[in-house]
Amino acid sequence: MLLSRFLLRTHATPAAYAARSLPIHRQRAFHASAIRRLLDMEKVNTSQRLAELRKLMQERQIDVYMVPSEDSHQSEYIAPCDGRRAYISGFSGSAGYAVVTLEKAALSTDGRYFNQAEKQLDSNWELLKQGLQDVPTIQEWTADQVAGGKVVGVDPTVVTAADARKLADKIKKKGGDYKAVDENLVDLVWGKERPSRPSEKVIVQPVQHSGKSFDDKIADIRKELEKKKSLGFVASLLDEIAWLYNLRGSDIPYNPVFFSYAVVTPTQATLYVDESKLTPEAKEQLGDKVTIKPYDAIFNDLTALSAEAFEANSEAAEKKKFLTSNRASWALNKALGGEERVDEVRSPIGDAKAVKNEVELDGMRNCHIRDGAALSEYFAWLEDQLINKNATLDEVDGADKLESIRAKQDLFMGLSFDTISSTGANAAVIHYQPEKPLASVIDPKAIYLCDSGAQYRDGTTDTTRTLHFGEPTETEKTAYTLVLKGHIALERVKFPKGTTGFAIDALARQFLWAEGLDYRHGTGHGVGSFLNVHEGPIGIGTRVQYSEIPLSVGNVVSNEPGYYEDGKFGIRIENMVLVKEVETKHKFGDKPYLGFERVTMTPHCRKLVDMSLLSEAEKAFINEYHQEIFDKTSKFFENDPLTLAWLKRETAPY
Amino acid sequence: MLLSRFLLRTHATPAAYAARSLPIHRQRAFHASAIRRLLDMEKVNTSQRLAELRKLMQERQIDVYMVPSEDSHQSEYIAPCDGRRAYISGFSGSAGYAVVTLEKAALSTDGRYFNQAEKQLDSNWELLKQGLQDVPTIQEWTADQVAGGKVVGVDPTVVTAADARKLADKIKKKGGDYKAVDENLVDLVWGKERPSRPSEKVIVQPVQHSGKSFDDKIADIRKELEKKKSLGFVASLLDEIAWLYNLRGSDIPYNPVFFSYAVVTPTQATLYVDESKLTPEAKEQLGDKVTIKPYDAIFNDLTALSAEAFEANSEAAEKKKFLTSNRASWALNKALGGEERVDEVRSPIGDAKAVKNEVELDGMRNCHIRDGAALSEYFAWLEDQLINKNATLDEVDGADKLESIRAKQDLFMGLSFDTISSTGANAAVIHYQPEKPLASVIDPKAIYLCDSGAQYRDGTTDTTRTLHFGEPTETEKTAYTLVLKGHIALERVKFPKGTTGFAIDALARQFLWAEGLDYRHGTGHGVGSFLNVHEGPIGIGTRVQYSEIPLSVGNVVSNEPGYYEDGKFGIRIENMVLVKEVETKHKFGDKPYLGFERVTMTPHCRKLVDMSLLSEAEKAFINEYHQEIFDKTSKFFENDPLTLAWLKRETAPY
Repeated sequence: MLLSRFLLRTHATPAAYAARSLPIHRQRAFHASAIRRLLDMEKVNTSQRLAELRKLMQERQIDVYMVPSEDSHQSEYIAPCDGRRAYISGFSGSAGYAVVTLEKAALSTDGRYFNQAEKQLDSNWELLKQGLQDVPTIQEWTADQVAGGKVVGVDPTVVTAADARKLADKIKKKGGDYKAVDENLVDLVWGKERPSRPSEKVIVQPVQHSGKSFDDKIADIRKELEKKKSLGFVASLLDEIAWLYNLRGSDIPYNPVFFSYAVVTPTQATLYVDESKLTPEAKEQLGDKVTIKPYDAIFNDLTALSAEAFEANSEAAEKKKFLTSNRASWALNKALGGEERVDEVRSPIGDAKAVKNEVELDGMRNCHIRDGAALSEYFAWLEDQLINKNATLDEVDGADKLESIRAKQDLFMGLSFDTISSTGANAAVIHYQPEKPLASVIDPKAIYLCDSGAQYRDGTTDTTRTLHFGEPTETEKTAYTLVLKGHIALERVKFPKGTTGFAIDALARQFLWAEGLDYRHGTGHGVGSFLNVHEGPIGIGTRVQYSEIPLSVGNVVSNEPGYYEDGKFGIRIENMVLVKEVETKHKFGDKPYLGFERVTMTPHCRKLVDMSLLSEAEKAFINEYHQEIFDKTSKFFENDPLTLAWLKRETAPY
Repeated sequence: MLLSRFLLRTHATPAAYAARSLPIHRQRAFHASAIRRLLDMEKVNTSQRLAELRKLMQERQIDVYMVPSEDSHQSEYIAPCDGRRAYISGFSGSAGYAVVTLEKAALSTDGRYFNQAEKQLDSNWELLKQGLQDVPTIQEWTADQVAGGKVVGVDPTVVTAADARKLADKIKKKGGDYKAVDENLVDLVWGKERPSRPSEKVIVQPVQHSGKSFDDKIADIRKELEKKKSLGFVASLLDEIAWLYNLRGSDIPYNPVFFSYAVVTPTQATLYVDESKLTPEAKEQLGDKVTIKPYDAIFNDLTALSAEAFEANSEAAEKKKFLTSNRASWALNKALGGEERVDEVRSPIGDAKAVKNEVELDGMRNCHIRDGAALSEYFAWLEDQLINKNATLDEVDGADKLESIRAKQDLFMGLSFDTISSTGANAAVIHYQPEKPLASVIDPKAIYLCDSGAQYRDGTTDTTRTLHFGEPTETEKTAYTLVLKGHIALERVKFPKGTTGFAIDALARQFLWAEGLDYRHGTGHGVGSFLNVHEGPIGIGTRVQYSEIPLSVGNVVSNEPGYYEDGKFGIRIENMVLVKEVETKHKFGDKPYLGFERVTMTPHCRKLVDMSLLSEAEKAFINEYHQEIFDKTSKFFENDPLTLAWLKRETAPY
């Protein structure tokens, strides 16, 4: 599943999560039905909500109140209770930023959502269309409201310290003031109707799957603290906390995480979580090595901890500081005493988490064999239904069938994101997610793109295959083959240790570029181990961050070039690959050379390949891959002649 | 000529520039003889110099004094009068940083110079070997001296504002203080022996060659000022000032620049330069459009200008600031009133300068035809001498011959850098510059690498060819061909507008990487138009800056992958290329696609190519190139059958 800038934003569809107590993999249907309602795109009358909010603002002497989409952990998906921007504005899209003054209200969103926002926003709201010329960003719009000493307020738990600093600068330049407001004013307006914070069970991810005890992980973090001469690390990203303590939850859709904070100092480890969520096994695992405190206690605790540490440290020549992630909230930064006491860094937990150990890598290999078999079974079934049985199936029918096949696999825990099942022109909509009744019927004469993945106890999968069940056009075949050539070039590359994902991105694009073609998304993202399907800090693409961190042995990353023709078709080919050391004839400068190991185990679509565009080396590379897929997955189809025949055909040598 | 991190440092060989009043191209020999003396690597007794410096420090209550290598303009090469670090330490290498406390003295330099520094530093000095484990950086070493409130001083004209801030932070953390000292204390010690600042003539670079009047350039800068709502731009990089005012000088070897500052405000343009240096034509060109003031007047002027501007601006809602380059000195920043009044930016002049206009591009094409002919003549001569005439020639003989051939070309103004003429194992020393008597005799049975370039009135050249006059080994042929394949892959690439030089660097390395080989330098640097052979901000490689600025139509950049085996041989193949719009079958997203136009006009070495490693497309690409070279340069050899025969042989189809 590709990671776009937009997808880093949040998924605020409050009504969609009613079915939280079901197993993760059954939540999808409920989610879908909730979205269906939202797709009606009813206007919400926000007059009453805004009036109440403005009253609260006036009581607190706030002239402008900002409502971003994020939760307190900068999560990619959010829980319903954190959907404040959707509640106050009525706009339910995943990306947006609302600002309310005593007289006006503005909502900024990106191109995907212009239509939806126009339909959903009532007359109280001005829509700022991001990216259009002469349209101010929400920050610029806000700064334009402050002349004459106006005060801008925000809940400091839902903005990062870095963003807050930048915005404060902008506002001060225009003569205003920027202020943290301790209570979330939208929550106060929302009142009793606001959903409660999810409190799903928190379970143990045993060492059998995580490959390392949480004590050892904490010991590693403490080594980092010592190296950085730091007083302690405050963790606020939910997947980092889940990874650190070898725990998993289900508070957030698709991401097996739970609401929490964590603090590790040289002598103490604390987990801030609602204790009642922990299973007995989870409590037993933490034992007396980790202090458990209530979720909300973090802020007062940090203030006390910081005061104590700085008093103890006051005589030292060199002032030690606390570390937080550079995505930690302004509220955490303030609680610790602000910039003077905090270094905001790329999280050492995030860095450690991205380097999978042997157990996790084996888990990735294994779950991809099961997942690849599930995909092959689905593709064979779909072809049979469409071509031999003339069935009428829409995109959601397809996604549901695929989910049901995955759910049969060992260690299945749910989907890792909402399946992208798209036919024809829908495949060109990069983040298309079909929902009945709007889903299209799958056209056997058009391209079908399926981007999907699952959570297994031993790993997380994410695969895209683009298929055709009839006769593809020459244009489609050429485009598919250029994408495939880039995909293969990246998979075959060998590079010296120290090379970044930014540096090799062009290898995947070069064949498209030569024809004047390209795709508007990154080529790869990091993937968690039974954790978030998108994780940092590594990736392949032109984000600044990807130029700062070399790919290292143990990283798991997607390889997913594509090509999209608006209104016509879309192509994407995605494997997951592990970074490993490779053999080379020489070893210049005694540096190890690295390369990729493919773990995705379902074949590329034969029909879409223009063989004349492939070199002999490329054909050999695909043949070897297809042989491996057959060897590793054919055993699943001993009693399934349909899939076995499909697999044989698709993996036969080029 | 490749740009390494080291080469951004300076060339402090004070004795080497005695011959300043000669035409640029004759300075080389004098430079060489001066270096010869330095190569004796005599120890300088620095006791007296240090004693005097320490006395001055004590008078000013300075405990630690820092002496960097840079001049006030962060120039790549420096004039003798700016060689303070060499003077105070006795170490004459191009890269290094000296720090003197009341008791100790330390010099930090990189691996190229460990031997030389050990020979040249007397017992007063501690050598800090950069990059070795447990060796502090000069900044860390300095910070370690300040416990108990010690004061560190520096001449604020020779450090950038950004570096000063970083260092001040480090020093304050350790309890010390960092202070600008108005006079340069080393200059005071140096006294009358210090060479005077060069005052070579400043000439006009006419619009016939520059393609744009200086008024138009100033108008463009003013548009930038308006866009950025800025009070004015202070230019301090010498090539930027030369470019802006269409002037050229020869105060610094190889770089046709002159000591100066410039200020452009919405209403005024000022050039700070010793007026007596300006030729009558230069004065006439500037007329009354540019105010000329003495070089040293910049600091007081800026303080007055800033005070006036801020008073006038004091009522405005939005505070305007001055702009400087992010490489401007701390002294300039202070004169303007510090951070509150200055935005340090990537220079708008540097950005404009990097986009050559049609006249400059034509000049580049034309001078490369003459320069390519000169190189072919030299290579044919060298082969004839070595093989047919059994001549004994050393590397300097070769370089001198090449210079004499170049000097015959129209519009020749001098070399653009010291010729790298290297035989056998010397070719593996990336920045090797032969000087008699240490130069090696050119071995006709070994690889010969020649990296050289010239200044012409219509452009600047920079070409590397690697040759073999006998029978290359298989290893040499394989390595050469892998480098050539990367060179061609980069030259053939098409990429969408917006792509950076960082993103395409791997294309040049991919074939080497596949064999576990690589080179430890960037792939390309920007080149000036009768200006510095190394210029920013664009380039091809993994510097952070190269990931921030897309390549654009009109950029001129080198393409110079290489491969080096220590103690054996070195390979580098360098062309200069212009960025231009190219035809592609499609145009995804209606974006222009860009590519490269080769302007270097001397053939690749036939003997070193392993034809079996080239694809048909690669051969066709080379054949087309060689045909173009023959067509454009053979007319130079109507009366030179030797070179004509050589050119025919080397450009015959593969």
